[in-house]
Amino acid sequence: MDYRFSNRIASLQPSMIREILKATSGKDVIPFSAGNPSPETFPVEAIRSFTGAILENDPVAALQYGITEGYEPLRDKLKQHLLTRFGAGKDFDNLFIVSGAQQGIELACKVLCNEGDAIICESPSFIGSLNSFRSSGARLVGVPMESDGINVDKLEQALKTEKNVKLIYLIPNFQNPTGATTSLEKRKAIYALAKQYGVMILEDNPYGELRFKGEDIPSIKSMDDEGLVIYVGSFSKVLSAGLRVGYVLAPEAVMQKMVVAKQGEDVHTTMLSQLLAYKFMTEYDYDGHIKHIRAVYLRKCKLMTDSLDGFMAGKVTFNSPEGGLFLWCDLPKSVVMLDYCKKAAEKGVAVVPGTAFLVDEGDPCNAIRLNFSTPSDEQIVRGIEILSTVRP
Amino acid sequence: MDYRFSNRIASLQPSMIREILKATSGKDVIPFSAGNPSPETFPVEAIRSFTGAILENDPVAALQYGITEGYEPLRDKLKQHLLTRFGAGKDFDNLFIVSGAQQGIELACKVLCNEGDAIICESPSFIGSLNSFRSSGARLVGVPMESDGINVDKLEQALKTEKNVKLIYLIPNFQNPTGATTSLEKRKAIYALAKQYGVMILEDNPYGELRFKGEDIPSIKSMDDEGLVIYVGSFSKVLSAGLRVGYVLAPEAVMQKMVVAKQGEDVHTTMLSQLLAYKFMTEYDYDGHIKHIRAVYLRKCKLMTDSLDGFMAGKVTFNSPEGGLFLWCDLPKSVVMLDYCKKAAEKGVAVVPGTAFLVDEGDPCNAIRLNFSTPSDEQIVRGIEILSTVRP
Repeated sequence: MDYRFSNRIASLQPSMIREILKATSGKDVIPFSAGNPSPETFPVEAIRSFTGAILENDPVAALQYGITEGYEPLRDKLKQHLLTRFGAGKDFDNLFIVSGAQQGIELACKVLCNEGDAIICESPSFIGSLNSFRSSGARLVGVPMESDGINVDKLEQALKTEKNVKLIYLIPNFQNPTGATTSLEKRKAIYALAKQYGVMILEDNPYGELRFKGEDIPSIKSMDDEGLVIYVGSFSKVLSAGLRVGYVLAPEAVMQKMVVAKQGEDVHTTMLSQLLAYKFMTEYDYDGHIKHIRAVYLRKCKLMTDSLDGFMAGKVTFNSPEGGLFLWCDLPKSVVMLDYCKKAAEKGVAVVPGTAFLVDEGDPCNAIRLNFSTPSDEQIVRGIEILSTVRP
Repeated sequence: MDYRFSNRIASLQPSMIREILKATSGKDVIPFSAGNPSPETFPVEAIRSFTGAILENDPVAALQYGITEGYEPLRDKLKQHLLTRFGAGKDFDNLFIVSGAQQGIELACKVLCNEGDAIICESPSFIGSLNSFRSSGARLVGVPMESDGINVDKLEQALKTEKNVKLIYLIPNFQNPTGATTSLEKRKAIYALAKQYGVMILEDNPYGELRFKGEDIPSIKSMDDEGLVIYVGSFSKVLSAGLRVGYVLAPEAVMQKMVVAKQGEDVHTTMLSQLLAYKFMTEYDYDGHIKHIRAVYLRKCKLMTDSLDGFMAGKVTFNSPEGGLFLWCDLPKSVVMLDYCKKAAEKGVAVVPGTAFLVDEGDPCNAIRLNFSTPSDEQIVRGIEILSTVRP
């Protein structure tokens, strides 16, 4: 049989990172390439006890079909949380549960974009989102990322010149892969441009709770007086990634369409995961747990930057993120990136070349993304020491 | 803000059934309208004990990100199970895990169909699949369903005359909504036509294990010597619907594209659910449990047909399904269906008009779908008694 695939899928490649992960899984490789939360941050005891209680007291709710919008007490709790914690949510907004933030991102594209419509993305950006947009047949327009967020002049340029722009996709806090945080000024400017050009913003905030330095900056959703912003959040980095629970706060009309599209994808999100997330939000010391996670990542980030200073001073430059899971590390311009990553892998350290995250992989980029949440403390020090011996 | 949605989504309506379910949820209505498995069939004790063991012995596997293809031991076990139990799976096939069969159905359409490409469907058919195809922009071509499966002559006619047919979508066992089972002869004829016209088959088998009368009929996938069939199965009716675990057996090249598309939708299926499904397949008396489920549904089906014979003899005709969850019940031609369903709901019984399942809702149809798995035994008798008093 000669299989012929749809246009939107035929040209897609598996994510370079997930392929690297698969190739190195089970092997004794130091994983600077992943984006996994540290297992130290999983509240295992609480999850065990909550799960036991759910299956003891309410097994049918956990095991039966649920409604597509999600478990109502969890939805209500999250609406309240987003409003008090991030000032996000107006009367015209509503919230529903998705199977991880990834689904929220995919649904936003599905309901707003016809094939060939454009999505403006930070470049580099999260490869999972870029590939998801591609698999919906959207056309990606990259705008360069800077240390304080997207280049606003070039964003305006793109809004002026590109046809059928339907979304601006942003990760304002501790961006994946750069670790950069968008400044308050830029958030305001971006919102104003979105309003001026009548384009919606997709605000992806998986790392918002992981600030270990500096002060919170208001979410773009908190500025949303006109119903322009679709806000996506996740339990993956605060409770567990494997449970696959995220949520979307969006204007009611947009949410309704996203819910219909979700029905056709997976009917609803795993009920046991939703009930667990609800107990986590209501019966656990949520604030104390977030404090614990921040302390873990502050320690791991500092260990990595200290190791870079110790082993590779003068050879690389890197940002100092205020939160999240990633460092963005520039190598000398002479380095051939794929060679470098291959040699590092041979020596036992997995890193992802920055090019993997570009909207156009042909653009110049001499950086690697370094993840400090997945490796153990010992692996962080040892891995940077090994990287310092890689001769490209 | 004046929201403008994508063409494929703009025209979509929420599933009539899910809307009926939502409208009647929490109310004291007898649910003949749903498709929920009976809570009697959930192995609650085993799920509690397995979950406890997983979170005790292997919490990180349950709570961390996994690979998109799914938990490998579960994939291996299912491949072996499908081969020994249903004779399905050739060397060119592979299997991956999805977040419920619904996702497998949606992904098949996504990777094979461009907007406007055709999918041939049994009419009536499962509304969740029809809406999922619609939300991917596919064009549905309905072929009438008969008591022994799709009308094969009209199927050939459609294959001859319709342009860009990419899939034939079938539920060969105890079809939703008609309860009909496709005969062996028709399965062979359908496969031969698919081969002749070079069109793939999407074989949806959520109820395959729920045969409570008669003999198993070989799956179409078991006849698949050329790699034409995508087979989708589910744990929803044998373990738990709320856990959201299904699987897809497909030719390797097709599976690879579906996996890439799944990456962009939800990264992977809930790990805890997958680990649970694996324990269910390997540490539980699977065959004994299936026997138990069949006994429950045999009892409930008989109770419903006996009640229909008792309360409505001569007023309705219905099939006698050999398995599954549904009866298809024809009312007199004079009945106005929506009126009838509305009056039934007012009297406290929720039923879905057959028109909801048609590819073209304007086609004539004077049947209702009756579900016997969701209501209690008492509700079945009482509900049919009430239905016998509805004067349309």
